[in-house]
Amino acid sequence: MIEPPNWHFAPACVGDPVSAVDTPALLIDLDAFEFNLRTVHSRIKATNVALRAHGKAHKCPEIARIQVAAGACGVCCQKASEAQAFVDAGITDVLITNEIVGASKAARVAALARIARIGLCVDAPLHVAQIAQAAHAAGSTVDIYIEIDVGRSRCGVHRIDQALELARLIAAESPALRFNGLHAYHGASQHMREPAERAEAVQASVAKVRKFVAALAAAGHACPVITGGGTGTYDLVAGTGVYTEVQPGSYVLMDKDYALNRLASDETQLRQALYGLCTVISVSPTHAVLDGGLKTFAVDSGLPRMVLEGWTVKSVSDEHTVIVPSDEASALQVGDKVRLVPGHCDPTVNLHDWLVAMRGQIVEDVWPVAARGALF
Amino acid sequence: MIEPPNWHFAPACVGDPVSAVDTPALLIDLDAFEFNLRTVHSRIKATNVALRAHGKAHKCPEIARIQVAAGACGVCCQKASEAQAFVDAGITDVLITNEIVGASKAARVAALARIARIGLCVDAPLHVAQIAQAAHAAGSTVDIYIEIDVGRSRCGVHRIDQALELARLIAAESPALRFNGLHAYHGASQHMREPAERAEAVQASVAKVRKFVAALAAAGHACPVITGGGTGTYDLVAGTGVYTEVQPGSYVLMDKDYALNRLASDETQLRQALYGLCTVISVSPTHAVLDGGLKTFAVDSGLPRMVLEGWTVKSVSDEHTVIVPSDEASALQVGDKVRLVPGHCDPTVNLHDWLVAMRGQIVEDVWPVAARGALF
Repeated sequence: MIEPPNWHFAPACVGDPVSAVDTPALLIDLDAFEFNLRTVHSRIKATNVALRAHGKAHKCPEIARIQVAAGACGVCCQKASEAQAFVDAGITDVLITNEIVGASKAARVAALARIARIGLCVDAPLHVAQIAQAAHAAGSTVDIYIEIDVGRSRCGVHRIDQALELARLIAAESPALRFNGLHAYHGASQHMREPAERAEAVQASVAKVRKFVAALAAAGHACPVITGGGTGTYDLVAGTGVYTEVQPGSYVLMDKDYALNRLASDETQLRQALYGLCTVISVSPTHAVLDGGLKTFAVDSGLPRMVLEGWTVKSVSDEHTVIVPSDEASALQVGDKVRLVPGHCDPTVNLHDWLVAMRGQIVEDVWPVAARGALF
Repeated sequence: MIEPPNWHFAPACVGDPVSAVDTPALLIDLDAFEFNLRTVHSRIKATNVALRAHGKAHKCPEIARIQVAAGACGVCCQKASEAQAFVDAGITDVLITNEIVGASKAARVAALARIARIGLCVDAPLHVAQIAQAAHAAGSTVDIYIEIDVGRSRCGVHRIDQALELARLIAAESPALRFNGLHAYHGASQHMREPAERAEAVQASVAKVRKFVAALAAAGHACPVITGGGTGTYDLVAGTGVYTEVQPGSYVLMDKDYALNRLASDETQLRQALYGLCTVISVSPTHAVLDGGLKTFAVDSGLPRMVLEGWTVKSVSDEHTVIVPSDEASALQVGDKVRLVPGHCDPTVNLHDWLVAMRGQIVEDVWPVAARGALF
């Protein structure tokens, strides 16, 4: 068996003009990125709620370090192998906002907890048993969060008796496990288009969280942390007085889908910082063809959007994006480079090994997407 | 800048039971894979048309070597960096069935042509000029195919005068460039559901190809190779008497979308060889949640399909697939492993670093997806 050449040449060098970036590639507009960072961090800081930046959106330790330097208490991620990538890069506080199953994954988490603060979610006794066994064996302590389903959609317990049972099991595994509170994330609410819908979803989550917190407290299980909220709801969640931590991820990058959310008057529109850069490889009278397709852009939340006015994305296939002009569109030539806004940032970044950080027309840095493909 | 840890632990070791494979992972059922290989290769061999297996579907040199050993004349791919991965692995005949633009890509292709036979498509004078300059500089010869648009959709020239002009430009760059014929691939026809629709599309392509071949011959440009056709049309294309080469790719793996094609009475149903393996990480009264989502399965051609009867995929989000049971479904527990058929094999394989090759219930090999993420 050969070793895979699993990384590919970076598409640019520091100091290159953006026009020289090899394509297809992902660009980060640092001015927009830093605006988003300042905006979200300052708004959350004003509430005394902690910001734990979600690393699943960018999978990039360089960005995680910038977020921590800008006040994030740590990062979230979804996988044991993602946590490994962030801890390897020096992040000392990582919460896996997901359930993990299997002895090898539990052992990895427990080992990481020897060198960093690691949190993990559970919603079933098996989760508790597996991570307890691994943490006992490793001699480490893992923070455990009971996930409650506040959106009736994915993981998380539904009933208070389930949470009480899990809290009892967690407490019995001290010091390998330390009960640290509730994970109460409402994924669907992030993408509700109207601010009133999002506010209603957050209020429903809060009502449910309050019941669980009270019942757990009555049984002697205090919840130091209530964590949830994302880029679509961080403002609302931080203002509830119940959540102690919010976990936005996409906010630094943004995407076409998040830009469709209408904002309340007191919310701030974040800027598009992530772009796909493609080269025109073919031109016909009716359309032009770009050199990036489904392996460059995830299309689960819609096709990417052309930045150049007058051109519209018609289709995205494995290796190509076909764009069509309006009557007023300026002509494109083979070799021209164009930017597109991805439909959904998280799975798009996961297709790439590198993020090209640019300012104005110059490449300022090239960041490896170290947790790209970290599935386990 | 740090080096990315761009590959992740393999999900299995040779000899492991499949039940021990870490998840989410991609499995290849070798019995089905070999059935597909035998079926397609023997049918094409009977026609005296060459089979050039398309590597964009699997991006895996181990599979390419198996295809060549089973009679393929070489492989196709879509990117210069993919060609590099296959040549690095010992494949000596690679056709890039796409246009490439840019000096760095042209230089890579020209360098590969010093150690392997390399073909490349063009549909504009700039393509010819760039690869000619690079091949002259490298002292190599690149086979050039004029792409003609037989599906009115993506790359390729539309008019005969364009092809004649390109052939003239190519001839003028001898010995750096060698005109080797036409690339005439009809992407959309692969997924037309009815055999009559596919046959009609192939006949329309053939009619167009004949006109181009005749005009080029009249101008002194013989077309040694006419290449096209895919998993949906290889039988039809191989029987046209015009195409000299077919380029199926998905045939060894298959996916949910290809399985929806209805077959003519003389076509052979290929078997599903590619599966996603996931673990159940959460169970509720209404649904169960799997540990693979949009970073495990591409959903551009539909959601993956559960193999286990009675369970249906309801939704796929970044990190999770939610499945729902029918009244007759057998219960699933946290920790159970289940298989799914991906909607579209090409972009799904591109999400993974490894393919777990299994036979029966045993892991027989673990193949790196060496060209995963090869975008340039």
